Amino acid sequence: LSRRLTRAFASAKPPPSLFAALDTFPERHIGPDGHEASHMLSTLGYDSMEAFVDAAVPSKIRVSPTVVSKESIPAFSESELYHRAKQLGSYNKPFKSYIGMGYHNAVVPPVILRNVMENPAWYTPYTPYQPEIAQGRLESLVNYQSMVMSLTFMDIANASLLDEATAAAEGMVMAYMHCGQKKKTFFVDNGVFPQTLSVLQTRAKGFGIHLIVGNASTALDDEILRSDLCGIMLQYPDVNGSINDYGPLTKSVHATGALVVCATDLLALTMLKPPGEWGADIVLGNSARFGVPAGYGGPHGAFFAVSDKLKRKMPGRLIGRSRDTTGKTAYRLALQTREQHIRREKATSNICTSQALLANMAALYAVYHGPVGLRHIAHKVHGLTQALKYSVERLGFKVVNNDFFDTLTIDVSGVVQNSDIVHRASAAAGINLRRVDDKHIGLSLDESVGPVDWTALVNVFASAASADPISVSDVSPAETHSIPSALWRTSEYLPQPVFNKHHSETEMLRYIFHLASKDLGLVHAMIPLGSCTMKLNSTSSMIPLTWPEFSGVHPFAPIDQVKGYLHIIKELEEDLCRITGFHACSLQPNSGAAGEYAGLTVIRAYHESRGEGDRDICLIPLSAHGTNPASAVMAGLKVVPVKTHTDGNLDLDDLKLKAKQHKDKLAAFMITYPSTFGVFEEGITEACQIIHDHGGQVYLDGANLNAQIGLTNPATCGGDVCHMNLHKTFAIPHGGGGPGVGPICAAQHLAPFLPSHPLVATGGDQAIGAVSAAPFGSASICLISWAYIKMLGGQGLADSTKIALLNANYMAHRLSGHYSLRFKNGKGRVAHELLIDLAEFDKAAGLKVTDFAKRLQDYGFHPPTCSWPISTCMLIEPTESETLEEVDKFCDAMIQIRREVEDIITGRQPKENNVLKNAPHPLSVIAVSDKDWNRPYSRHTAAYPAPWLLERKFWPTISRIDDAYGDLNLICDCPSVEELAS
Amino acid sequence: LSRRLTRAFASAKPPPSLFAALDTFPERHIGPDGHEASHMLSTLGYDSMEAFVDAAVPSKIRVSPTVVSKESIPAFSESELYHRAKQLGSYNKPFKSYIGMGYHNAVVPPVILRNVMENPAWYTPYTPYQPEIAQGRLESLVNYQSMVMSLTFMDIANASLLDEATAAAEGMVMAYMHCGQKKKTFFVDNGVFPQTLSVLQTRAKGFGIHLIVGNASTALDDEILRSDLCGIMLQYPDVNGSINDYGPLTKSVHATGALVVCATDLLALTMLKPPGEWGADIVLGNSARFGVPAGYGGPHGAFFAVSDKLKRKMPGRLIGRSRDTTGKTAYRLALQTREQHIRREKATSNICTSQALLANMAALYAVYHGPVGLRHIAHKVHGLTQALKYSVERLGFKVVNNDFFDTLTIDVSGVVQNSDIVHRASAAAGINLRRVDDKHIGLSLDESVGPVDWTALVNVFASAASADPISVSDVSPAETHSIPSALWRTSEYLPQPVFNKHHSETEMLRYIFHLASKDLGLVHAMIPLGSCTMKLNSTSSMIPLTWPEFSGVHPFAPIDQVKGYLHIIKELEEDLCRITGFHACSLQPNSGAAGEYAGLTVIRAYHESRGEGDRDICLIPLSAHGTNPASAVMAGLKVVPVKTHTDGNLDLDDLKLKAKQHKDKLAAFMITYPSTFGVFEEGITEACQIIHDHGGQVYLDGANLNAQIGLTNPATCGGDVCHMNLHKTFAIPHGGGGPGVGPICAAQHLAPFLPSHPLVATGGDQAIGAVSAAPFGSASICLISWAYIKMLGGQGLADSTKIALLNANYMAHRLSGHYSLRFKNGKGRVAHELLIDLAEFDKAAGLKVTDFAKRLQDYGFHPPTCSWPISTCMLIEPTESETLEEVDKFCDAMIQIRREVEDIITGRQPKENNVLKNAPHPLSVIAVSDKDWNRPYSRHTAAYPAPWLLERKFWPTISRIDDAYGDLNLICDCPSVEELAS
Ligand SMILES: Cc1ncc(COP(=O)(O)O)c(C=O)c1O
Ligand SMILES: Cc1ncc(COP(=O)(O)O)c(C=O)c1O
Ligand SMILES: O=C([O-])O
Repeated sequence: LSRRLTRAFASAKPPPSLFAALDTFPERHIGPDGHEASHMLSTLGYDSMEAFVDAAVPSKIRVSPTVVSKESIPAFSESELYHRAKQLGSYNKPFKSYIGMGYHNAVVPPVILRNVMENPAWYTPYTPYQPEIAQGRLESLVNYQSMVMSLTFMDIANASLLDEATAAAEGMVMAYMHCGQKKKTFFVDNGVFPQTLSVLQTRAKGFGIHLIVGNASTALDDEILRSDLCGIMLQYPDVNGSINDYGPLTKSVHATGALVVCATDLLALTMLKPPGEWGADIVLGNSARFGVPAGYGGPHGAFFAVSDKLKRKMPGRLIGRSRDTTGKTAYRLALQTREQHIRREKATSNICTSQALLANMAALYAVYHGPVGLRHIAHKVHGLTQALKYSVERLGFKVVNNDFFDTLTIDVSGVVQNSDIVHRASAAAGINLRRVDDKHIGLSLDESVGPVDWTALVNVFASAASADPISVSDVSPAETHSIPSALWRTSEYLPQPVFNKHHSETEMLRYIFHLASKDLGLVHAMIPLGSCTMKLNSTSSMIPLTWPEFSGVHPFAPIDQVKGYLHIIKELEEDLCRITGFHACSLQPNSGAAGEYAGLTVIRAYHESRGEGDRDICLIPLSAHGTNPASAVMAGLKVVPVKTHTDGNLDLDDLKLKAKQHKDKLAAFMITYPSTFGVFEEGITEACQIIHDHGGQVYLDGANLNAQIGLTNPATCGGDVCHMNLHKTFAIPHGGGGPGVGPICAAQHLAPFLPSHPLVATGGDQAIGAVSAAPFGSASICLISWAYIKMLGGQGLADSTKIALLNANYMAHRLSGHYSLRFKNGKGRVAHELLIDLAEFDKAAGLKVTDFAKRLQDYGFHPPTCSWPISTCMLIEPTESETLEEVDKFCDAMIQIRREVEDIITGRQPKENNVLKNAPHPLSVIAVSDKDWNRPYSRHTAAYPAPWLLERKFWPTISRIDDAYGDLNLICDCPSVEELAS
Repeated sequence: LSRRLTRAFASAKPPPSLFAALDTFPERHIGPDGHEASHMLSTLGYDSMEAFVDAAVPSKIRVSPTVVSKESIPAFSESELYHRAKQLGSYNKPFKSYIGMGYHNAVVPPVILRNVMENPAWYTPYTPYQPEIAQGRLESLVNYQSMVMSLTFMDIANASLLDEATAAAEGMVMAYMHCGQKKKTFFVDNGVFPQTLSVLQTRAKGFGIHLIVGNASTALDDEILRSDLCGIMLQYPDVNGSINDYGPLTKSVHATGALVVCATDLLALTMLKPPGEWGADIVLGNSARFGVPAGYGGPHGAFFAVSDKLKRKMPGRLIGRSRDTTGKTAYRLALQTREQHIRREKATSNICTSQALLANMAALYAVYHGPVGLRHIAHKVHGLTQALKYSVERLGFKVVNNDFFDTLTIDVSGVVQNSDIVHRASAAAGINLRRVDDKHIGLSLDESVGPVDWTALVNVFASAASADPISVSDVSPAETHSIPSALWRTSEYLPQPVFNKHHSETEMLRYIFHLASKDLGLVHAMIPLGSCTMKLNSTSSMIPLTWPEFSGVHPFAPIDQVKGYLHIIKELEEDLCRITGFHACSLQPNSGAAGEYAGLTVIRAYHESRGEGDRDICLIPLSAHGTNPASAVMAGLKVVPVKTHTDGNLDLDDLKLKAKQHKDKLAAFMITYPSTFGVFEEGITEACQIIHDHGGQVYLDGANLNAQIGLTNPATCGGDVCHMNLHKTFAIPHGGGGPGVGPICAAQHLAPFLPSHPLVATGGDQAIGAVSAAPFGSASICLISWAYIKMLGGQGLADSTKIALLNANYMAHRLSGHYSLRFKNGKGRVAHELLIDLAEFDKAAGLKVTDFAKRLQDYGFHPPTCSWPISTCMLIEPTESETLEEVDKFCDAMIQIRREVEDIITGRQPKENNVLKNAPHPLSVIAVSDKDWNRPYSRHTAAYPAPWLLERKFWPTISRIDDAYGDLNLICDCPSVEELAS
């Protein structure tokens, strides 16, 4: 044998037993193998992993290795996980749900299912902070915005929010802010979905908004109410299926200066006069029926559209058209100054991760069907609903709503004693209907309904009525629509070319691949975004997601139908508690920021339960992520900043001072650990003690949990509650900007307050209410984190943490001497990420962080997190999934850039026209004619600064974005026929 | 509404009824919509589709529209098809098969499953005839070759053959040819798989090879036999699991001048002394257990390796390393001069389409596991087999073979009366064992076996023996191996870097995406390869393929377990008969060429059955595809060429002359219809009549069936038997060079002769024997064609044909005036493809067909078929799946190239240094420094000759390949550590 192979054979750990599975996951998940880890350890001067870990992590917060271990979490191999998921999936019963209430049986076009939802090129990229390597999904998100604007007839729409209920809450808060926080009454029509109402109630509390529920068409005459009104919330069509003409009401509300917020349904809007035409100010809803599976509640994209005057106050990501430095049209995140990462406690929304992948699926669905296809779908759904109404009425049932699109509320009392009789008949047929009350049932039809489904559905009623079965041939289409004529849509929709040409599968496939080809994802290279933990999103963990037994489940299905889901949820909750050291868990929050808000609200409820409801001060270090202060404000807290020392450590004296000063009002302290500066501070336990001593609770922002698992945990650090970003630490792919899951784990004393849900029992017995539309939030993707934990097992989880620390420290070592590491601990170690400061290069050569970031793109890398938490810095996080080779390549690139910088500092290259300032260099720039290549360096230097790039390179597709131009000329929809022609 | 949308709404066909499905397939499959079709028709001067079709297709061969119609083949919508496939899948029973015989339960690494097998970027490209846009799969195929060379220890290996049995047949014929066709005895050891034997028998007949079956270790002493021996065939380990030391035998065979052909198993070779070390000349087998699902028989890649002296006679695709014009390493098809398309009747193999996709999966499996991983897998399989042997022996059973890798033959007679008792116990446990005889059963273990499987398996024996159940804890690993020590492998394998670095999933994912990024597939642009019919491979038809209920089935599973498969097979056969007008169908042939061979062999058998066995003349037009004459020779026929007129039509006088001349010996006439020149000849029926009048049979090459469906058919044209390329006309993706399915349909008088199988009842009652290893060939992918037909329905099929004709004729119209169309019919129409002649440009400007082809790559297009069937021509086939926009873009590109040519003709551009001669222009060439850009045109002209390319362009990754260099310096494996270091 060759020396190399002999060594490989000898050193490869043999399987532990004859029967041991060989498709074990840790070796696939963790990048460096044993040799590489040893190499890195010895480079850093350690002779064992333990010695290294001891230097990085303070001993006083270490937990016993038995907490997260082989024994406490046994590992499944990849195929064992597959079989386990199949088994649990079989415990979910495949009922057909007509429950509606915002959730439908979506039909995902196979070309989108396979090539977007199941394609890592789409699901692994990050939020498009780097537009030059993200034009694909940016274009698609603009399509999403255009689709929403067109169907709602609103001036502007964002690129998705978390779900309909939280979108409604954002709308309510916008109304409240719009009225200067002076008018405090928000009126909710009783046609609004109950889950939306519950989230509104929770959210109203934080802001001190006075929520009134009633019949909007009658209640709003009350003058007292009108004088304090900041907004109203309507559902169109409403929960019972009725379609009301809200035009007059809207006029009357506008007369008070309040806003009209309207939840609606995109498919219905192909037939209904859109809210933008009758005056709504804010229009929102769930876009999942455009080809996104129900997934037991999510994820899916909520849409959110406003009138022009409100656009600069709109929450969420907004994509705008701008241009690059060559003048080419280019897309990018617009108006970022609205967002929490800039405005912090002045932001009115904490939204960060949204639902990019699902928004893109919905947009592509509209692209594939186009206006004509959508119209056919809507007409069919409506026609089948009409036929159903006619048929059940012939059986003696009474349909309560005369006007409808796809939803009927049926009074069954003329035929049966109790609606239970109908529900029993439906259960026998494998069908779920909406439970309204003893006399009424509800149902909503959707695109998935074929003749067999329809017949089964109508015969639930026939059987309940003891009548003869009905067949399709008994039915003839209605002559006219069941939509009020005044509310019939006459305006056009989706006229833009993009919605009118990709209708063959071949064209669609090419469009999908074309878009994907512009975006850098984990399929191309490391994405070392600090604080974002872009690790492997394994195929094994993704596969079960799109199985119908998981993707097809309605979130309000009876719990005896969802035993598989509940089992997975329970196991995941237990494992997360084990990992965090806490007592109880809620999977309901749909993002990290939503977790923060939920956790802080739990803390407030806890104080209140002890008669300390006026504790409303939240201490937050200046280095905190923008979501922290924004979430605190949403939870009704006042933010008081805490200083940090120049060595990066929390200023414990300042903390003590502030805690003392606010002693009687101290509610909470929010801290990220290891810190956003990338070090494990020794002072953590002391800091927590200070807070507890002053009556406060500690919220631990778990974004950096990847540095903790198995070595320490939030409870041991002194926290009372924390959120996790399952889309970071627990390997849910970031989807190009979402979905996410931000569960919270809490200590025993906080457990009673965990979020509940109006329709499905969950949460504590003194729950804060709902924080998301669905009982378990984005339940389907919890499967991914469940699989991740189960396949790594405790041992693999702890090993991952160690390698994450090792990779970061090795990188810090290699970059030292070239770049200045901003912070490290007393033993010279960073945590799982490192912060390098580039300030010196601004002084020496006029180079900003952005110049380094854009130049890294030329090397085929996604830049690290830029200018956060310190504006002159880059925060670099390699994660455990990157091999030594990739880590070294990244370091080589950084070092080579440092050499390029030296040329600028020494004047060998000019300050204004150099490889950094002109970066990135897309193809179209390289391929210009000689006369246009006015650069003092060669094309080769521009494009291939490192040798490996000749073999493998990801190319940016535009040159540097012009941000200012875009914000000045805000255009957020896709080009029209006319624009394209010109 | 806007004018455009109003028109769209008005003209869109509304759904035919309230209940009609909306996710109908024809609109997605067919590129041009109604408007576009009308536009093309009117451009061509027709006022209806019917008028156009009448001009293109001769009236005398038209069939009634009722033959292939809405009624005769009703259409399923995409979701209906999904449910139907689910239902039929549920009829396949999920037994665990240990039948072995070359088929195992492969474990497909999920990262390969999702990103290769389920990724259209991998499955839609064509055979890599254009290396500049195919470096990804070429590199991967070289990995495959390297893997095979290394594991077998042979000098050279090709890039896959169709299956193990046909590979064995190729080996036999090589041996026969090697001995100058003088020695006619080929000896097959009785340890060879029965399905291989059957295919050898069929194939031997065509060549007049004398096949003897017996015990090789004893029978070969016979001097008479030795004197006529051209080769022997061995199985290592053999069908019963025994491992024999064939070294001495090989010496003895070599002494006669004969060759030793050895079928083997790649996994076993990680532990066994490889055949290359003990002297085998040809080594082959099935590589499916390297991560390719059994799929009820296929597809999978067969490997084929030979010693150096045989390399220039080796069948199949061979990939070699060469360089491009800049000196960069580049891969391409090597030694094409060996192949049928060059050598025609002098070729000894007809192989064309092979198994690229499956070979790539197997290669990537080896890349992912590496030598260490493979070794662990092999040791585990072997260890579990040992444990099984030990356990069943304790129960009183007797294992017949002392040496084994993974296969045991067990004498059960000491414990039970009859082996049926064991088979009944196994059936009760959901397990299949190999049926040997009344006293013996066989079984083979594989990578998929876990403790639960193993326990269930061993307890089949416990239960048959009425003994207590055995559990895993009763078992301890054996102390030593059960492999003869002389046959223990000591040589290394897979030392190359590519097999030793991509072992984390992240690295693997990036490697897979990196390779894919170099290859142009249907996901990027039209692939207008004439005669290849590169149409949409719809996602709906691909999805069921990888469901376990279809992918996990062993080809020799009892037929009551495969009712779903048999149903689909039956429906597909019936539909193919309806479409071709024939009586019976065989799905067994694994490619078009294999279909030709099967069909001609059927014709021979027919003649023989009538006492006309000496009919052995096959008339073939000069314009025929190379596979035709090659197949004819394999079927034992002598090829007599027939002329064509300069107008492209068959020379009927010459045909009559030849038919008459060979009247008594005339066996067959092979004809492609419409002709390879792309026209429906009027003379077809007359030609067939001539053949029939002279006692011959007509073989219709169905490669161009896409022009016929619903309008005419092979039976009506006058044929007796035809093959179809399901991987062309019926939408099986080409997989970058395979898989394929080449079923034959035959008239009633030929039906009795259709291929049979030794283990599963199929075919006619006077069958020619087997032509493939599995009873229904590559059964799993027949699902795709079944779905294609069922989703289009008869109407959609006929409409597809019409649009395919229309697209081609529209293209001919647009190109006329710029290029000379070589052939058209009397009414000025071509069929579904068009042949343009570029000879004039060679004269005028020294430009060859290749120059045009390479320049088309710069425009982002895959070139059409080049220099076939006429060396100065391009054969262009757009198919029905391309939209008018794409067709127009292609025409624009061709017209623009024509302008570029004009510049060369007129001397504005030099003859030797111009955009065509230098094409293609990859990135690395564009990005060179100014001093190296020694071209009389700009980079922009090179890279962006058409405006749409700035927005969307597929880039070649190398400059023009240097073919001669590669054939001179034949290197067919991947770079070693040393090479990469230098
Ligand atoms: C430290 C920190 N906290 C909170 C968040 C917010 O998480 P999410 O984006 O899931 O809302 C982030 C996101 O990057 C973060 O880095
Ligand atoms: C006319 C014709 N006949 C036969 C074949 C052989 O088919 P296959 O490649 O499937 O063996 C081809 C393939 O291109 C062809 O074009
Ligand atoms: O997503 C972040 O804002 O880090």
